[in-house]
Amino acid sequence: MQDQYVPEVTHLKTHDKRVAWARAQRDAGLAKVDPKLQGIPDQLPQSSLGLPGAVLTAREIEITESYSVTELLRILKDREITVEEVTRAFLRRAALAQTNCITHLLWDQAITRAKNLDSLPEPKGMLFGLPISTKEHHGMVGDEVVTNASLTTWIGKRHGSNLLYDSLYDQGCVFYVRTTQPQNIMQLETVSVIYGRTVHPYNRELSPGGSSGGESALIGMRGSLLGVGGDIGGSIRCPAAHVGIYGFKPTLKRISVLGSRSLMAGKETIMSTPGPMTVDRDALELFMKAALASEPWLTDPSLTFKPWSPYKCIQQLKIAIMWWDGVVTPHPPITRAMKEVAEACCKAGMEVVDWDAESLHHQTSWELLTQLYWPDGGEEALDLMKKGGEEVLPLSKFILQQANVKHLTQPELWDLCRRRDEYRAEYAHAWNNTKGENGKEVDVIICPPSFGAASPHDQSRYWGYTSHWNLLDYPGAIFPVTKVCREKDPIQTGYIPKNEEDRFIYEMYSPERYEDMPVALQVIGRRSYDEKVLAVLKEIELALGRE
Amino acid sequence: MQDQYVPEVTHLKTHDKRVAWARAQRDAGLAKVDPKLQGIPDQLPQSSLGLPGAVLTAREIEITESYSVTELLRILKDREITVEEVTRAFLRRAALAQTNCITHLLWDQAITRAKNLDSLPEPKGMLFGLPISTKEHHGMVGDEVVTNASLTTWIGKRHGSNLLYDSLYDQGCVFYVRTTQPQNIMQLETVSVIYGRTVHPYNRELSPGGSSGGESALIGMRGSLLGVGGDIGGSIRCPAAHVGIYGFKPTLKRISVLGSRSLMAGKETIMSTPGPMTVDRDALELFMKAALASEPWLTDPSLTFKPWSPYKCIQQLKIAIMWWDGVVTPHPPITRAMKEVAEACCKAGMEVVDWDAESLHHQTSWELLTQLYWPDGGEEALDLMKKGGEEVLPLSKFILQQANVKHLTQPELWDLCRRRDEYRAEYAHAWNNTKGENGKEVDVIICPPSFGAASPHDQSRYWGYTSHWNLLDYPGAIFPVTKVCREKDPIQTGYIPKNEEDRFIYEMYSPERYEDMPVALQVIGRRSYDEKVLAVLKEIELALGRE
Repeated sequence: MQDQYVPEVTHLKTHDKRVAWARAQRDAGLAKVDPKLQGIPDQLPQSSLGLPGAVLTAREIEITESYSVTELLRILKDREITVEEVTRAFLRRAALAQTNCITHLLWDQAITRAKNLDSLPEPKGMLFGLPISTKEHHGMVGDEVVTNASLTTWIGKRHGSNLLYDSLYDQGCVFYVRTTQPQNIMQLETVSVIYGRTVHPYNRELSPGGSSGGESALIGMRGSLLGVGGDIGGSIRCPAAHVGIYGFKPTLKRISVLGSRSLMAGKETIMSTPGPMTVDRDALELFMKAALASEPWLTDPSLTFKPWSPYKCIQQLKIAIMWWDGVVTPHPPITRAMKEVAEACCKAGMEVVDWDAESLHHQTSWELLTQLYWPDGGEEALDLMKKGGEEVLPLSKFILQQANVKHLTQPELWDLCRRRDEYRAEYAHAWNNTKGENGKEVDVIICPPSFGAASPHDQSRYWGYTSHWNLLDYPGAIFPVTKVCREKDPIQTGYIPKNEEDRFIYEMYSPERYEDMPVALQVIGRRSYDEKVLAVLKEIELALGRE
Repeated sequence: MQDQYVPEVTHLKTHDKRVAWARAQRDAGLAKVDPKLQGIPDQLPQSSLGLPGAVLTAREIEITESYSVTELLRILKDREITVEEVTRAFLRRAALAQTNCITHLLWDQAITRAKNLDSLPEPKGMLFGLPISTKEHHGMVGDEVVTNASLTTWIGKRHGSNLLYDSLYDQGCVFYVRTTQPQNIMQLETVSVIYGRTVHPYNRELSPGGSSGGESALIGMRGSLLGVGGDIGGSIRCPAAHVGIYGFKPTLKRISVLGSRSLMAGKETIMSTPGPMTVDRDALELFMKAALASEPWLTDPSLTFKPWSPYKCIQQLKIAIMWWDGVVTPHPPITRAMKEVAEACCKAGMEVVDWDAESLHHQTSWELLTQLYWPDGGEEALDLMKKGGEEVLPLSKFILQQANVKHLTQPELWDLCRRRDEYRAEYAHAWNNTKGENGKEVDVIICPPSFGAASPHDQSRYWGYTSHWNLLDYPGAIFPVTKVCREKDPIQTGYIPKNEEDRFIYEMYSPERYEDMPVALQVIGRRSYDEKVLAVLKEIELALGRE
């Protein structure tokens, strides 16, 4: 890791000047777009979904809308299209999103890379020519790279590539855009002092989720087909769900974080993992294959030494539905989505059972997590914000100022880790006990990815539906199911909230507020069953009548 | 874990009374031996190796001496011998060792178990009828079990089985004896306030190593053919080497520690792993298969989800010899052993190269380890000793009072973990770089398991040859090579020590002191290459003309 700042920021002494520099850098990237974007209305529409039709050429729309990732890779490999043409189309579509999801548009670098790939005698790599979007704090391949990780004090700080991005690059992808994350990179929304708020491409009043919300906002309108997020509490899965795309949080230590910029480097109580966010289910597995093709465990020996080993579903599947987590009742569209999927799985011949979360005390995981996230009481994070002179935003305050967060002594830390491990063992035990008379245990759990569809801004204060699986280190995949519908998803009148959190969530719902917003679900597998989760996801989608 | 004390110790208020109770409990177990052991001289000989011939029956000697583990298992399975007869023979042989290696002789329990196994209509399990010895602090299958982990304050404290022992038990073994470990379980010798000093079966003036020194002292005279040790800095490998048996420290998280009693439960900076110690090479792999047969990762989800997957050596092997670690020069017999093995490997057609440890700064691992072992500055350990009123023994002082040991803040801990991970990545990089023109990287490193053969008491103050691989989490196997020989292993006169530690080690050697003591070597593989290490060990032994 490089610890120098670029010379031009070193004389910027005030917070505002540094922020202005970061935004100017972003704007300079966007200004490179050629031909210029014409036809964006001065008064931005509530939804960005109509913009591509108004601004892009028919050919650009064809390139960005009519191919799956697999199909696009095929025509790139067969050289039915140039990498440059594809790259330019995605650069232009990314730039017009108007959701404030971009930190760096890599116009020149991407086109240079595309030309270079086009000049190769033979296409090379399993991602040949595919534009890939990336979360800003991970860093980026190349010289002269700066990475701020949403901290004003790190604006203009050099920080280059990481092991994962090097692997993807070796497989022939084109990095072309870097995307926003929230302050602290610990919110399920995306707002930072540096770049402001990232909004939902379907509805500016709502959040695309977070912390990989720049990715979701971008991919949600096909400004990218495949992006890289990171997840320590839901940061891939929540935003993927909110925009109705696919996302995957693998088990820790399948994908390396080596070289990524983050706070509290060296903390190992709870860790983040990168993972894919994409418009296509098959691209989840493609990403995992590409990430592991270079045998990264030989470079980052903390990784699990295991190639990607596709799983085949042979026996009848046993699917557990977790209707709620015992803490907060999901909004009606989520429950309806679970019903629809459960029914389809039944019809397809799967065994469908209930997952009894109530007896498994999901509250425990949140009590442990809040302390394990901040073993120093949040001091490093707060100090860095203070150093940069930046305001601590509401959702940062929320997560940092949980009642039990404090600087732990080492024995206090051990005690938490011990309780974490005990809880993990209890949950594993519960899973073992799902073996029925036929001796078959539950293959996966289907559950909400959040209490509801995309939230109104600054309201994402319940992480349980995703963070629980981080505490357990279980892999989880997100898949789109339906959309919020006024007729089908009325308020559950007469519902009596079970606790304060449940009341907060219950009162947030109204069908009007969320109308037409995507509704997704989550497939959870046991720790290390990454390949199985993706294989079963495919079976579930087949049951839903998808390909 | 059960936290109650047995009623009879609760009124024992003084340190001395508690220690007397623990010793009386041990003695009561030994007193059960039937028929009594006759013929042990009042004045114990310097070596215990002659005792079995003087005390045991011809049949007992046959049973305990003439079979490998595999052969014994075969005749047990074929019921050419009863489990009870085998168990009685090993109980009697264990009891006569006179090396002070036993904490509990499980006479009644073992014979009951043996009879039970004999009464089964069919032999069951891959360890059917095999007596297995175990390290005291791990706990033990059964009710009424107490486990003190060498702390006087824990004398009489209930602590039952663990996941590993349950797995071995399910495979049909007989637990019959529990063995000593040192105070703090953090010494490379074996001396505790409770049981005193465990001595080497070949020479009472020397140490059988530690911390699994009860096991090595016992197995070293075939009072057990297979035992379970634990290793966080060399505690399986050092004692195995000192008595000339086989030992294996797998990569962390292959074998569970769930249920074991230890200090600082929940600490995850550097962890201990159980592993086998045995008279036979093949029993190392057998143990691993038996330990993983129950799919323990379904119960302890922190484990690597990976069955034992035997490795086959197909290509020419590339063996690196690490002649020294860049800190301390090994004693002449160790160097001679490496020369003999290197030569045999060459003759067998392997490629043999040097491992350049000097450029890899092995000192770094010790600097990190000392702090990572005691992130609380050793407070918990010292407090527990104080609570029990026990003296802090010299080698406990040595390891706890390294200059840099202190209570770390969380950011200080992260910094150490980060540096640990960087060092691991550097080492992996160096290993990657061993790829020569033929693209073949080093398969294993052969290196000393210690600076020398078994040490005189209270002198084991250099851990580097084993602890280095704990820091890296590389698997390591110990195999016997030769014995110290006055003629072949003279003092290297004129040697100029390179530093203070090197001088200490150099001055410890004289051929007379160590004469006829076993000399073993260590085979090290990359992290997670457990199966490969054992497969290559076999090839090395074939090269040495063994089976």
